[in-house]
Amino acid sequence: MPFVRIDLVEGRTLEQIHTIADAVQECMEEVFAAPPRDRYQVVTEHKPGRIILEDTGLGLERTDGVVVISVLQQGRSAEQKQALYAALAERLELKAGVRPEDLMVNVSENTRADWSFGMGRAQFLTGEL
Amino acid sequence: MPFVRIDLVEGRTLEQIHTIADAVQECMEEVFAAPPRDRYQVVTEHKPGRIILEDTGLGLERTDGVVVISVLQQGRSAEQKQALYAALAERLELKAGVRPEDLMVNVSENTRADWSFGMGRAQFLTGEL
Amino acid sequence: MPFVRIDLVEGRTLEQIHTIADAVQECMEEVFAAPPRDRYQVVTEHKPGRIILEDTGLGLERTDGVVVISVLQQGRSAEQKQALYAALAERLELKAGVRPEDLMVNVSENTRADWSFGMGRAQFLTGEL
Repeated sequence: MPFVRIDLVEGRTLEQIHTIADAVQECMEEVFAAPPRDRYQVVTEHKPGRIILEDTGLGLERTDGVVVISVLQQGRSAEQKQALYAALAERLELKAGVRPEDLMVNVSENTRADWSFGMGRAQFLTGEL
Repeated sequence: MPFVRIDLVEGRTLEQIHTIADAVQECMEEVFAAPPRDRYQVVTEHKPGRIILEDTGLGLERTDGVVVISVLQQGRSAEQKQALYAALAERLELKAGVRPEDLMVNVSENTRADWSFGMGRAQFLTGEL
Repeated sequence: MPFVRIDLVEGRTLEQIHTIADAVQECMEEVFAAPPRDRYQVVTEHKPGRIILEDTGLGLERTDGVVVISVLQQGRSAEQKQALYAALAERLELKAGVRPEDLMVNVSENTRADWSFGMGRAQFLTGEL
């Protein structure tokens, strides 16, 4: 059920984009306990200069390799979120060459009634999920 | 007040996009009781391969006709949300040929203080709405 | 920490886009008390006809100069939000020529655990921020 938006700067091939998206999904399954095939991702490529990330004084140097991940989900703990951030940084660097300095993640929460995965049904309420 | 993002794969004409957006708005008015002209939509077209939807094992077959609808709103009940999903699936198939298998909807909630529809004012707090 | 999405119609130069983004950031710092370099913005340009804003009967005339600002943040009061809307309208008109009628703002809230600004760490939980 996490719904994930991935925003990045254009210039990567579709294969490179899918490597990133795959790595993100691996983290959702391993750290957020998303079940198999629980994958809902939208990737948006932006021209240079449209993703503007500074660092709140943390000393992070950003490049055009920035990746912004916005996760909408329900029910994960603060511990799971912390583990997710660490896993994303490690996995994205290892698999896709994303610098940890270039990764920003934000999470939002909704409820079980707030999802329809298809067919016009709220599968968390119908008992299908 | 619902603010609605509609993400889909490029290839539709603007007229087809508007047919989809119109159908979504009809559902907002009829099921979410949005008042007339309470329409706030952003449609983003993506190149193929950027919207990655699986099915959490629900047996849904996705195509490049996928439509992802992200609704930000305040105050609707779980019953209204369920009715919205059903209405969207029915209406989008009927009017725009969107397969119900290709429709994913997510909803998020904020509060009445979280909206400014124009002029720099929070119309739900000023009494204008 | 506000994460800000700015959606607008294509046609502006990158310099004009940055003028808008800079004005938005000034409001975040001045009204939302964002610390220096606490800037996280994604601007998406859309072809005409993809941002559909009506006015809920408020009598606002929209143009292709519309700017939709979606703010994800934590902890601001209703008073701060109202001040933000006013500041955005004033600042964007003054600096970037955005008509107040063309400005729509929505705000969503998450928690301190919901942010990683880089390095795979939740800086609000680690004490770094």
